[in-house]
Amino acid sequence: MADRPRVVIVGAGFGGLACARKLDGAPVDVLLLDRHNYHLFTPLLYQVATGLLNPSDIAYPLRAVFRRSRNVRVREATVENVDLGRRVVRLSGGATLPFDYLVLASGSVDNYFGNQAVAQVSIGLKALEDATRLRNHVLTCLERADAETDQATRRALLTFVVVGGGPTGVECSGALAELMDIVAGKDYHQVARDEIKIILVEGGDRLLNAFSPHLGHYAQRVLARRGVDIRTRALVKGADARSVTLADGTMIACGTIIWSAGVRPNDAVTDPSIPRLRNHRINVDPWLRVPGASGVYAIGDVASPQVAKQGELPMLSPPAMQGGRYVAETIVDEVRGLQLERPPFHYLDKGTMATVGRNAGVTHLPGGLEFTGFIGWLTWLFVHIYYLIGFRNRLSALGSWAWGYLRHDRPIRIILAASNGQEE
Amino acid sequence: MADRPRVVIVGAGFGGLACARKLDGAPVDVLLLDRHNYHLFTPLLYQVATGLLNPSDIAYPLRAVFRRSRNVRVREATVENVDLGRRVVRLSGGATLPFDYLVLASGSVDNYFGNQAVAQVSIGLKALEDATRLRNHVLTCLERADAETDQATRRALLTFVVVGGGPTGVECSGALAELMDIVAGKDYHQVARDEIKIILVEGGDRLLNAFSPHLGHYAQRVLARRGVDIRTRALVKGADARSVTLADGTMIACGTIIWSAGVRPNDAVTDPSIPRLRNHRINVDPWLRVPGASGVYAIGDVASPQVAKQGELPMLSPPAMQGGRYVAETIVDEVRGLQLERPPFHYLDKGTMATVGRNAGVTHLPGGLEFTGFIGWLTWLFVHIYYLIGFRNRLSALGSWAWGYLRHDRPIRIILAASNGQEE
Repeated sequence: MADRPRVVIVGAGFGGLACARKLDGAPVDVLLLDRHNYHLFTPLLYQVATGLLNPSDIAYPLRAVFRRSRNVRVREATVENVDLGRRVVRLSGGATLPFDYLVLASGSVDNYFGNQAVAQVSIGLKALEDATRLRNHVLTCLERADAETDQATRRALLTFVVVGGGPTGVECSGALAELMDIVAGKDYHQVARDEIKIILVEGGDRLLNAFSPHLGHYAQRVLARRGVDIRTRALVKGADARSVTLADGTMIACGTIIWSAGVRPNDAVTDPSIPRLRNHRINVDPWLRVPGASGVYAIGDVASPQVAKQGELPMLSPPAMQGGRYVAETIVDEVRGLQLERPPFHYLDKGTMATVGRNAGVTHLPGGLEFTGFIGWLTWLFVHIYYLIGFRNRLSALGSWAWGYLRHDRPIRIILAASNGQEE
Repeated sequence: MADRPRVVIVGAGFGGLACARKLDGAPVDVLLLDRHNYHLFTPLLYQVATGLLNPSDIAYPLRAVFRRSRNVRVREATVENVDLGRRVVRLSGGATLPFDYLVLASGSVDNYFGNQAVAQVSIGLKALEDATRLRNHVLTCLERADAETDQATRRALLTFVVVGGGPTGVECSGALAELMDIVAGKDYHQVARDEIKIILVEGGDRLLNAFSPHLGHYAQRVLARRGVDIRTRALVKGADARSVTLADGTMIACGTIIWSAGVRPNDAVTDPSIPRLRNHRINVDPWLRVPGASGVYAIGDVASPQVAKQGELPMLSPPAMQGGRYVAETIVDEVRGLQLERPPFHYLDKGTMATVGRNAGVTHLPGGLEFTGFIGWLTWLFVHIYYLIGFRNRLSALGSWAWGYLRHDRPIRIILAASNGQEE
């Protein structure tokens, strides 16, 4: 066993997890590293933030995935840096892990484009802690507003600004509107529904830029009908704890800023000779290999080949998962001594989808087929439940959805302070 | 509406909530204050800490309880002090709330009997944050041990000391043992089950002092069979981050100390003229009135009458709930101008129960009837599910139990850091 090639995978998101699962049972020793002890289904974070799902519905313990595996081991660890020259991964705390093969799959973090002021006061939707923090924050704003008599303060507490009109921003705005329908005037008797403003700010000229104009406009109509104030061609310039300022000078008093306007790759490779795209993704070759470092691959949000035909890969879960499986196959072929010429990685676009909330989704299939409305929503729902890890999580999420749908409820409206007892 | 008597209830635990529910619809304006926005079912906190239940299964939003109420309002607030002379409740933040009737129901907190060193490093089981903190902590100890080669450090990380052999300590030890059976050698491949020590420390000469010796010995046998090391007649004298020291000088290296050895009343009445029992509970009269302050009542853990026949009331949920309803009836009678002589409060003991884990519970009924084993466990389970607030929470908890029971699983094994990103 000791002389089997050692594969280290950095990050257990969609890409790293798919790679590790594909390597389960292969003649290699795999070590899967992540700074959390769970795989997180990030596309549903906003459902945790808005009280429909429990954190445990979308977070699956990594060690549970590989309980029965003989060759995949998991370790919760923060990677300090990746030294491609010495071929080791250094963990914070000092441990160094040598590798024969390395798969960089550490994903992305929120990108505030250098605007520290905005970063300081915004809440993103990339980590589970973001979602629970946002839930605490939104409910705390409502609690405060319910007891507040000063009109300006009330207005700010009851204004929620969502930045970025992609799927995350659209879905989050829709879910927030649903939550407000449930609680305004009911849980919070002193807060009227029409006092609450949800403002969706998008830099481009329409929502869901990655979808067809038809779908983008559909989402826009549905959200507007549900009371979301949509501002297109609007860029955020600055922010503080009580307001956000747009590029055209408009100042919006608000107590909550949710950031979904961009992400940037998050990797621990410091070697300056590694080629990168303008957005800092590692510019891997068409076989997803990091140039100049043998046996080192990079997949998902941290990397993209730049090929003439397909362009850059989108920072979404499907290319990450497909890349993870592709790299695993490459490694297995090589370890088994197969001298086959591998075809370059080809990303198979199976379509994209988003939901605007209850009964309203948009689905785009590669052939050009599009669904909206109830069918779009149902497709979205079942695809998302299907991709959750673990039977129990699927069951639990489906149960929560059924409850929420039938009862018009988002029941998990608890403000659960951090374990140090501090709320925001 | 404005001239209806104003009832302020401090604390929405079992007593305060029962009182507010009984006053729902009565000709009074009720304000229910709690430092959290939920009612917490504290007896099941250890199930959250050991990965069987979600926080939201045992925490129910208070505003959801009173959504449809016309006269009960809820406010998340920390009470700074209660001024019985001026008849106001002062909130932290400065607001003062006048009252016509006041019900003190703020419960209890962990009692470390002045031992700051022990308080510093122990984790209690009184608040929801305690439970999530304990879950994070236990899983983090296992994560670290899995990667640790130093034997002394491993031993400490894998030793879990539970202090106090009452129901909480017994239930928590049993659940911890179950969790360890599930994960040792499976999730954590480098950790063998017999490396893990769970030590239950009790000052008296047996477990479950409030039950009959027969039940206490049964619990002891079951826990011992499940691998819990029980030390009776052992008192904790000191502790630091790596060990606990007993009164006889024994030092136990451990990374986790769970405190369930006592609670003390937690109220914000500063008036020194209020009579108190030796354990600081307010010594209310047989009608649960605070002597010397008209219209002021105290119920649950913060107070007890000291009557010859019944002695002091136990610090458990049933006397709190019964006291809450009794006081609500008293207030309604008085507001309605009924000149009836109220009978003194009489606590009806319906029995006590505890579980030692899977298929093993103890139930004591007032007639002297006792159950152990599967029947004791089933009784315990259904009584606890019945007393959860809300149909959804009951459904969800029952579902989690069924899953855990049938699959031998405690699936919520996620380390969810605080919203500030800090783990312990």
